[in-house]
Amino acid sequence: MLHSTASFNRGTGCRLPLLTMNFCSDCGQPVSLTMPADDNRLRHVCGHCGTIHYQNPKMVIGSIPLWMQGEQPRLLLCRRAIEPRRGYWTLPAGFMENEETSEEAAQRETLEEAGARVELQGLFTLLNVPHVHQVHLFYRARLLDLDIEAGTESLEVKLFAEDEIPWDDIAFPTVSHTLKLFFSEFAALREGKPFGVHCLDIRRSLGR
Amino acid sequence: MLHSTASFNRGTGCRLPLLTMNFCSDCGQPVSLTMPADDNRLRHVCGHCGTIHYQNPKMVIGSIPLWMQGEQPRLLLCRRAIEPRRGYWTLPAGFMENEETSEEAAQRETLEEAGARVELQGLFTLLNVPHVHQVHLFYRARLLDLDIEAGTESLEVKLFAEDEIPWDDIAFPTVSHTLKLFFSEFAALREGKPFGVHCLDIRRSLGR
Repeated sequence: MLHSTASFNRGTGCRLPLLTMNFCSDCGQPVSLTMPADDNRLRHVCGHCGTIHYQNPKMVIGSIPLWMQGEQPRLLLCRRAIEPRRGYWTLPAGFMENEETSEEAAQRETLEEAGARVELQGLFTLLNVPHVHQVHLFYRARLLDLDIEAGTESLEVKLFAEDEIPWDDIAFPTVSHTLKLFFSEFAALREGKPFGVHCLDIRRSLGR
Repeated sequence: MLHSTASFNRGTGCRLPLLTMNFCSDCGQPVSLTMPADDNRLRHVCGHCGTIHYQNPKMVIGSIPLWMQGEQPRLLLCRRAIEPRRGYWTLPAGFMENEETSEEAAQRETLEEAGARVELQGLFTLLNVPHVHQVHLFYRARLLDLDIEAGTESLEVKLFAEDEIPWDDIAFPTVSHTLKLFFSEFAALREGKPFGVHCLDIRRSLGR
Protein backbone atom coordinates (compact mmCIF):
# COMPACT_ATOMS: atom_id res chain seq x y z
CA MET A 1 0.00 0.00 0.00
CA LEU A 2 2.63 2.42 -1.17
CA HIS A 3 0.52 5.48 -1.85
CA SER A 4 -1.71 5.98 1.14
CA THR A 5 -5.17 7.37 1.82
CA ALA A 6 -3.37 10.35 3.34
CA SER A 7 -3.04 11.78 -0.15
CA PHE A 8 -6.80 12.34 -0.15
CA ASN A 9 -6.64 14.46 2.98
CA ARG A 10 -3.72 16.73 2.33
CA GLY A 11 -4.43 20.27 3.41
CA THR A 12 -8.18 20.01 3.65
CA GLY A 13 -9.03 17.25 6.12
CA CYS A 14 -11.07 14.10 5.61
CA ARG A 15 -14.26 13.51 3.60
CA LEU A 16 -13.18 15.51 0.59
CA PRO A 17 -15.66 15.41 -2.28
CA LEU A 18 -12.72 15.87 -4.67
CA LEU A 19 -8.96 15.59 -4.45
CA THR A 20 -7.52 19.09 -4.72
CA MET A 21 -6.51 20.02 -8.27
CA ASN A 22 -5.23 23.45 -9.26
CA PHE A 23 -3.90 23.07 -12.80
CA CYS A 24 -4.83 21.14 -15.92
CA SER A 25 -2.56 18.11 -16.34
CA ASP A 26 -2.96 18.42 -20.13
CA CYS A 27 -2.09 22.09 -20.78
CA GLY A 28 -0.90 23.46 -17.40
CA GLN A 29 -3.52 26.24 -17.18
CA PRO A 30 -5.77 26.74 -14.09
CA VAL A 31 -8.83 24.54 -13.59
CA SER A 32 -12.07 25.48 -11.85
CA LEU A 33 -14.86 23.47 -10.25
CA THR A 34 -17.69 23.49 -12.79
CA MET A 35 -20.66 21.31 -13.60
CA PRO A 36 -20.23 20.24 -17.25
CA ALA A 37 -23.23 20.15 -19.62
CA ASP A 38 -25.18 16.85 -19.28
CA ASP A 39 -23.51 16.18 -15.94
CA ASN A 40 -24.84 16.44 -12.39
CA ARG A 41 -21.61 16.79 -10.40
CA LEU A 42 -18.90 19.37 -9.98
CA ARG A 43 -15.71 18.46 -11.87
CA HIS A 44 -12.33 20.10 -12.28
CA VAL A 45 -12.60 21.65 -15.77
CA CYS A 46 -9.81 23.46 -17.60
CA GLY A 47 -10.73 27.00 -18.57
CA HIS A 48 -8.20 26.91 -21.42
CA CYS A 49 -8.46 23.55 -23.22
CA GLY A 50 -11.80 22.39 -21.77
CA THR A 51 -10.57 19.03 -20.50
CA ILE A 52 -12.79 17.55 -17.78
CA HIS A 53 -10.73 15.83 -15.08
CA TYR A 54 -12.85 13.06 -13.57
CA GLN A 55 -11.99 11.53 -10.20
CA ASN A 56 -13.22 8.09 -9.22
CA PRO A 57 -12.81 5.63 -6.33
CA LYS A 58 -9.65 3.55 -6.06
CA MET A 59 -9.51 -0.16 -5.38
CA VAL A 60 -7.48 -1.61 -2.53
CA ILE A 61 -6.90 -5.35 -2.97
CA GLY A 62 -5.57 -7.86 -0.46
CA SER A 63 -5.46 -11.49 0.57
CA ILE A 64 -6.36 -13.51 3.67
CA PRO A 65 -3.33 -15.85 3.81
CA LEU A 66 -4.28 -19.05 5.68
CA TRP A 67 -1.86 -21.57 7.16
CA MET A 68 -3.25 -24.69 8.82
CA GLN A 69 -1.34 -25.65 12.00
CA GLY A 70 -2.82 -29.12 12.33
CA GLU A 71 -6.55 -28.40 12.78
CA GLN A 72 -6.01 -24.76 13.74
CA PRO A 73 -6.33 -21.96 11.17
CA ARG A 74 -3.73 -19.19 11.36
CA LEU A 75 -3.77 -16.00 9.35
CA LEU A 76 -0.81 -13.92 8.21
CA LEU A 77 -0.88 -10.27 9.29
CA CYS A 78 1.59 -7.42 8.64
CA ARG A 79 2.40 -4.58 11.05
CA ARG A 80 2.44 -1.37 9.02
CA ALA A 81 5.72 0.53 8.61
CA ILE A 82 4.02 3.48 6.86
CA GLU A 83 1.23 5.95 7.47
CA PRO A 84 -1.69 5.89 7.74
CA ARG A 85 -1.89 3.65 10.82
CA ARG A 86 1.82 2.96 11.20
CA GLY A 87 2.40 0.28 13.85
CA TYR A 88 -1.06 -1.26 13.43
CA TRP A 89 -1.77 -4.71 11.99
CA THR A 90 -3.34 -5.39 8.61
CA LEU A 91 -3.91 -8.09 6.05
CA PRO A 92 -1.49 -7.66 3.14
CA ALA A 93 -3.25 -5.24 0.74
CA GLY A 94 -2.65 -2.22 -1.41
CA PHE A 95 -3.79 -0.11 -4.32
CA MET A 96 -4.55 -2.00 -7.51
CA GLU A 97 -2.34 -0.88 -10.41
CA ASN A 98 -3.23 -0.28 -14.05
CA GLU A 99 -2.63 -3.26 -16.37
CA GLU A 100 -3.18 -5.90 -13.68
CA THR A 101 -6.18 -7.96 -12.57
CA SER A 102 -7.58 -7.92 -9.05
CA GLU A 103 -6.14 -11.42 -8.41
CA GLU A 104 -2.71 -10.30 -9.64
CA ALA A 105 -2.93 -7.28 -7.33
CA ALA A 106 -3.76 -9.50 -4.32
CA GLN A 107 -0.81 -11.79 -5.03
CA ARG A 108 1.59 -8.90 -5.72
CA GLU A 109 0.70 -7.06 -2.51
CA THR A 110 1.02 -10.26 -0.47
CA LEU A 111 4.48 -10.82 -1.89
CA GLU A 112 5.57 -7.18 -1.51
CA GLU A 113 4.34 -6.67 2.07
CA ALA A 114 4.90 -10.12 3.58
CA GLY A 115 7.28 -11.88 1.20
CA ALA A 116 4.58 -14.54 0.96
CA ARG A 117 3.48 -16.73 -1.93
CA VAL A 118 -0.21 -17.66 -1.94
CA GLU A 119 -2.70 -19.60 -4.01
CA LEU A 120 -5.92 -17.56 -4.22
CA GLN A 121 -9.14 -19.39 -3.40
CA GLY A 122 -11.89 -16.95 -4.26
CA LEU A 123 -13.21 -13.48 -3.55
CA PHE A 124 -14.36 -13.19 0.08
CA THR A 125 -15.22 -9.55 0.89
CA LEU A 126 -16.06 -6.41 -1.08
CA LEU A 127 -16.18 -3.38 1.21
CA ASN A 128 -17.19 0.09 0.11
CA VAL A 129 -15.52 2.94 2.01
CA PRO A 130 -17.22 5.91 0.32
CA HIS A 131 -15.85 8.67 2.59
CA VAL A 132 -12.28 7.89 1.46
CA HIS A 133 -13.28 7.05 -2.14
CA GLN A 134 -12.17 3.42 -1.91
CA VAL A 135 -13.45 -0.09 -2.53
CA HIS A 136 -11.56 -2.89 -0.75
CA LEU A 137 -11.50 -6.50 -1.99
CA PHE A 138 -10.05 -9.42 -0.02
CA TYR A 139 -9.41 -12.88 -1.47
CA ARG A 140 -9.16 -16.11 0.52
CA ALA A 141 -5.65 -17.52 0.05
CA ARG A 142 -3.59 -20.58 0.96
CA LEU A 143 -0.08 -19.75 2.13
CA LEU A 144 2.26 -22.00 0.12
CA ASP A 145 5.15 -22.06 2.63
CA LEU A 146 6.38 -20.33 5.78
CA ASP A 147 9.22 -18.52 4.03
CA ILE A 148 7.81 -15.07 4.91
CA GLU A 149 9.45 -11.76 5.76
CA ALA A 150 8.47 -8.14 6.23
CA GLY A 151 8.67 -6.03 3.06
CA THR A 152 9.67 -2.35 3.07
CA GLU A 153 6.14 -1.29 4.10
CA SER A 154 5.91 -3.74 7.03
CA LEU A 155 7.64 -3.67 10.43
CA GLU A 156 6.98 -7.38 11.00
CA VAL A 157 4.83 -10.22 9.69
CA LYS A 158 3.34 -12.98 11.84
CA LEU A 159 0.80 -15.81 11.89
CA PHE A 160 -2.12 -15.46 14.30
CA ALA A 161 -4.69 -17.97 15.55
CA GLU A 162 -8.15 -16.47 16.12
CA ASP A 163 -7.58 -15.94 19.87
CA GLU A 164 -4.23 -14.24 19.22
CA ILE A 165 -5.50 -11.57 16.77
CA PRO A 166 -4.67 -8.07 18.15
CA TRP A 167 -8.23 -6.82 17.65
CA ASP A 168 -7.57 -3.43 19.25
CA ASP A 169 -4.59 -2.83 17.00
CA ILE A 170 -6.06 -3.61 13.58
CA ALA A 171 -5.29 -0.81 11.14
CA PHE A 172 -8.56 -0.54 9.21
CA PRO A 173 -12.21 -1.48 9.80
CA THR A 174 -12.31 -3.29 6.44
CA VAL A 175 -9.63 -5.65 7.81
CA SER A 176 -11.42 -6.23 11.15
CA HIS A 177 -14.67 -7.06 9.38
CA THR A 178 -12.92 -9.39 6.97
CA LEU A 179 -11.07 -11.24 9.76
CA LYS A 180 -14.24 -11.70 11.85
CA LEU A 181 -16.23 -12.95 8.86
CA PHE A 182 -13.43 -15.31 7.90
CA PHE A 183 -13.15 -17.00 11.31
CA SER A 184 -16.94 -17.19 11.58
CA GLU A 185 -17.26 -18.87 8.19
CA PHE A 186 -14.27 -21.12 8.82
CA ALA A 187 -16.04 -22.45 11.95
CA ALA A 188 -19.18 -23.10 9.88
CA LEU A 189 -17.28 -25.19 7.33
CA ARG A 190 -17.61 -28.21 9.68
CA GLU A 191 -21.40 -27.96 9.31
CA GLY A 192 -20.96 -28.14 5.56
CA LYS A 193 -21.54 -24.43 4.84
CA PRO A 194 -19.22 -23.21 2.08
CA PHE A 195 -17.51 -19.80 2.12
CA GLY A 196 -19.65 -16.99 0.74
CA VAL A 197 -18.86 -13.60 -0.81
CA HIS A 198 -19.73 -10.71 1.50
CA CYS A 199 -20.47 -7.11 0.50
CA LEU A 200 -20.39 -4.45 3.22
CA ASP A 201 -20.38 -0.66 3.42
CA ILE A 202 -18.12 1.07 5.95
CA ARG A 203 -19.53 4.54 6.44
CA ARG A 204 -16.76 6.02 8.60
CA SER A 205 -13.42 5.01 10.08
CA LEU A 206 -13.03 3.43 13.51
CA GLY A 207 -11.31 5.37 16.27
CA ARG A 208 -10.04 8.18 14.10
CA MET B 1 -21.43 5.97 -18.44
CA LEU B 2 -20.82 9.64 -18.98
CA HIS B 3 -17.05 9.71 -19.23
CA SER B 4 -16.00 6.98 -21.57
CA THR B 5 -13.02 4.70 -21.99
CA ALA B 6 -12.14 6.90 -24.96
CA SER B 7 -10.45 9.27 -22.54
CA PHE B 8 -7.81 6.62 -21.99
CA ASN B 9 -6.97 6.46 -25.65
CA ARG B 10 -6.81 10.06 -26.69
CA GLY B 11 -3.91 10.75 -28.97
CA THR B 12 -1.94 7.62 -28.27
CA GLY B 13 -4.12 4.60 -29.07
CA CYS B 14 -5.21 1.71 -26.91
CA ARG B 15 -3.34 -0.23 -24.20
CA LEU B 16 -1.70 2.80 -22.64
CA PRO B 17 0.35 2.02 -19.56
CA LEU B 18 -0.49 5.50 -18.26
CA LEU B 19 -2.98 8.20 -19.17
CA THR B 20 -1.04 11.06 -20.71
CA MET B 21 -0.12 13.79 -18.22
CA ASN B 22 2.02 16.79 -19.09
CA PHE B 23 1.75 19.13 -16.12
CA CYS B 24 1.50 18.82 -12.35
CA SER B 25 -2.12 19.34 -11.21
CA ASP B 26 -0.81 20.77 -7.92
CA CYS B 27 1.69 23.41 -9.09
CA GLY B 28 1.30 23.57 -12.89
CA GLN B 29 4.95 22.76 -13.69
CA PRO B 30 5.99 19.94 -16.11
CA VAL B 31 5.95 16.31 -14.94
CA SER B 32 8.20 13.51 -16.15
CA LEU B 33 7.93 9.72 -16.08
CA THR B 34 10.18 8.61 -13.23
CA MET B 35 10.42 5.62 -10.92
CA PRO B 36 10.13 6.99 -7.37
CA ALA B 37 12.35 5.62 -4.57
CA ASP B 38 10.88 2.44 -3.03
CA ASP B 39 8.62 2.00 -6.06
CA ASN B 40 8.81 -0.40 -8.99
CA ARG B 41 6.76 1.42 -11.61
CA LEU B 42 7.06 4.56 -13.68
CA ARG B 43 4.90 7.40 -12.38
CA HIS B 44 4.30 10.98 -13.46
CA VAL B 45 6.42 12.96 -10.98
CA CYS B 46 6.58 16.75 -10.74
CA GLY B 47 10.12 18.09 -11.18
CA HIS B 48 9.20 21.23 -9.20
CA CYS B 49 7.14 20.21 -6.14
CA GLY B 50 7.87 16.46 -6.18
CA THR B 51 4.24 15.30 -6.15
CA ILE B 52 3.80 11.75 -7.44
CA HIS B 53 0.66 11.41 -9.55
CA TYR B 54 -0.59 7.82 -9.23
CA GLN B 55 -3.04 6.36 -11.72
CA ASN B 56 -5.21 3.40 -10.85
CA PRO B 57 -8.01 1.34 -12.43
CA LYS B 58 -11.54 2.69 -12.50
CA MET B 59 -14.68 0.77 -11.56
CA VAL B 60 -17.63 0.46 -13.91
CA ILE B 61 -20.78 -0.65 -12.07
CA GLY B 62 -24.07 -1.85 -13.50
CA SER B 63 -27.18 -3.89 -12.89
CA ILE B 64 -28.94 -6.85 -14.54
CA PRO B 65 -32.55 -5.65 -14.35
CA LEU B 66 -34.90 -8.66 -14.43
CA TRP B 67 -38.62 -8.58 -15.20
CA MET B 68 -40.59 -11.82 -15.03
CA GLN B 69 -43.16 -12.13 -17.83
CA GLY B 70 -45.05 -15.04 -16.31
CA GLU B 71 -42.41 -17.78 -16.18
CA GLN B 72 -40.13 -16.10 -18.69
CA PRO B 73 -37.19 -13.94 -17.54
CA ARG B 74 -36.62 -10.72 -19.49
CA LEU B 75 -33.66 -8.39 -19.05
CA LEU B 76 -33.52 -4.65 -19.61
CA LEU B 77 -30.89 -3.46 -22.09
CA CYS B 78 -29.98 0.05 -23.28
CA ARG B 79 -28.81 1.00 -26.78
CA ARG B 80 -25.89 3.38 -26.35
CA ALA B 81 -26.25 6.99 -27.55
CA ILE B 82 -22.58 7.77 -26.88
CA GLU B 83 -19.14 6.50 -27.83
CA PRO B 84 -17.52 4.10 -27.39
CA ARG B 85 -19.84 1.58 -29.09
CA ARG B 86 -22.64 4.01 -29.97
CA GLY B 87 -25.66 2.07 -31.28
CA TYR B 88 -24.73 -1.15 -29.49
CA TRP B 89 -26.66 -2.72 -26.61
CA THR B 90 -25.49 -2.82 -23.00
CA LEU B 91 -26.71 -3.42 -19.49
CA PRO B 92 -27.13 -0.10 -17.66
CA ALA B 93 -23.68 0.67 -16.18
CA GLY B 94 -21.18 3.46 -15.71
CA PHE B 95 -18.24 4.80 -13.79
CA MET B 96 -18.55 4.67 -10.02
CA GLU B 97 -18.33 8.13 -8.45
CA ASN B 98 -16.52 9.27 -5.32
CA GLU B 99 -18.67 9.31 -2.16
CA GLU B 100 -20.99 6.53 -3.29
CA THR B 101 -21.07 2.76 -2.70
CA SER B 102 -21.01 0.20 -5.49
CA GLU B 103 -24.71 -0.57 -4.89
CA GLU B 104 -25.60 3.12 -5.05
CA ALA B 105 -23.64 3.39 -8.31
CA ALA B 106 -25.54 0.43 -9.82
CA GLN B 107 -28.91 1.96 -8.90
CA ARG B 108 -27.92 5.45 -10.05
CA GLU B 109 -26.69 4.27 -13.45
CA THR B 110 -29.84 2.14 -13.95
CA LEU B 111 -32.00 5.18 -13.23
CA GLU B 112 -29.88 7.56 -15.37
CA GLU B 113 -29.56 5.34 -18.44
CA ALA B 114 -32.90 3.52 -18.44
CA GLY B 115 -35.14 5.56 -16.13
CA ALA B 116 -35.56 2.31 -14.19
CA ARG B 117 -35.96 1.67 -10.47
CA VAL B 118 -34.51 -1.62 -9.25
CA GLU B 119 -34.08 -3.58 -6.05
CA LEU B 120 -30.56 -5.04 -6.01
CA GLN B 121 -30.27 -8.75 -5.22
CA GLY B 122 -26.55 -9.37 -4.87
CA LEU B 123 -23.24 -9.09 -6.69
CA PHE B 124 -23.16 -11.38 -9.74
CA THR B 125 -20.00 -10.69 -11.80
CA LEU B 126 -16.63 -9.05 -11.22
CA LEU B 127 -14.73 -8.70 -14.49
CA ASN B 128 -11.18 -7.39 -14.77
CA VAL B 129 -10.38 -5.57 -18.02
CA PRO B 130 -6.71 -4.79 -17.40
CA HIS B 131 -5.89 -3.41 -20.88
CA VAL B 132 -8.33 -0.52 -20.37
CA HIS B 133 -7.59 -0.17 -16.62
CA GLN B 134 -11.09 -1.10 -15.53
CA VAL B 135 -12.95 -3.47 -13.21
CA HIS B 136 -16.63 -4.05 -14.02
CA LEU B 137 -19.18 -5.16 -11.41
CA PHE B 138 -22.74 -6.24 -12.21
CA TYR B 139 -25.48 -6.74 -9.62
CA ARG B 140 -28.58 -8.89 -10.05
CA ALA B 141 -31.63 -6.63 -9.84
CA ARG B 142 -35.42 -6.84 -9.78
CA LEU B 143 -37.11 -4.23 -11.96
CA LEU B 144 -39.79 -2.62 -9.77
CA ASP B 145 -42.09 -1.47 -12.58
CA LEU B 146 -42.22 -1.03 -16.37
CA ASP B 147 -42.09 2.76 -16.25
CA ILE B 148 -38.77 2.91 -18.15
CA GLU B 149 -37.37 5.36 -20.67
CA ALA B 150 -34.06 6.09 -22.40
CA GLY B 151 -31.84 8.57 -20.55
CA THR B 152 -29.57 11.05 -22.35
CA GLU B 153 -26.90 8.38 -22.90
CA SER B 154 -29.31 5.81 -24.38
CA LEU B 155 -31.05 5.74 -27.79
CA GLU B 156 -33.65 3.25 -26.57
CA VAL B 157 -34.30 0.82 -23.74
CA LYS B 158 -36.05 -2.53 -24.11
CA LEU B 159 -36.77 -5.84 -22.38
CA PHE B 160 -35.32 -8.98 -24.00
CA ALA B 161 -36.02 -12.66 -23.46
CA GLU B 162 -32.96 -14.88 -23.81
CA ASP B 163 -33.73 -15.80 -27.45
CA GLU B 164 -34.22 -12.13 -28.36
CA ILE B 165 -30.86 -10.83 -27.06
CA PRO B 166 -28.95 -9.14 -29.93
CA TRP B 167 -25.77 -11.11 -29.23
CA ASP B 168 -23.89 -9.68 -32.23
CA ASP B 169 -24.67 -6.14 -31.16
CA ILE B 170 -23.66 -6.19 -27.51
CA ALA B 171 -21.38 -3.24 -26.72
CA PHE B 172 -18.82 -4.86 -24.40
CA PRO B 173 -17.53 -8.37 -23.70
CA THR B 174 -18.11 -7.88 -19.96
CA VAL B 175 -21.83 -7.47 -20.75
CA SER B 176 -21.97 -10.54 -23.06
CA HIS B 177 -20.30 -12.70 -20.42
CA THR B 178 -22.61 -11.41 -17.69
CA LEU B 179 -25.74 -12.02 -19.78
CA LYS B 180 -24.70 -15.57 -20.72
CA LEU B 181 -23.83 -16.44 -17.12
CA PHE B 182 -27.10 -14.96 -15.91
CA PHE B 183 -29.33 -16.98 -18.25
CA SER B 184 -27.30 -20.12 -17.54
CA GLU B 185 -27.67 -19.71 -13.78
CA PHE B 186 -31.31 -18.71 -14.06
CA ALA B 187 -32.01 -22.02 -15.83
CA ALA B 188 -30.19 -23.89 -13.05
CA LEU B 189 -32.37 -22.31 -10.34
CA ARG B 190 -35.04 -24.95 -11.05
CA GLU B 191 -32.55 -27.62 -10.00
CA GLY B 192 -32.10 -25.77 -6.70
CA LYS B 193 -28.73 -24.21 -7.51
CA PRO B 194 -28.52 -20.66 -6.14
CA PHE B 195 -26.90 -17.78 -8.01
CA GLY B 196 -23.12 -17.54 -7.51
CA VAL B 197 -20.62 -14.69 -7.77
CA HIS B 198 -18.39 -14.97 -10.84
CA CYS B 199 -14.93 -13.47 -11.31
CA LEU B 200 -13.53 -13.32 -14.84
CA ASP B 201 -10.64 -11.63 -16.62
CA ILE B 202 -11.21 -10.14 -20.08
CA ARG B 203 -7.80 -9.81 -21.69
CA ARG B 204 -8.82 -7.89 -24.83
CA SER B 205 -11.93 -6.47 -26.44
CA LEU B 206 -14.14 -8.39 -28.83
CA GLY B 207 -14.32 -7.32 -32.45
CA ARG B 208 -12.42 -4.09 -32.07
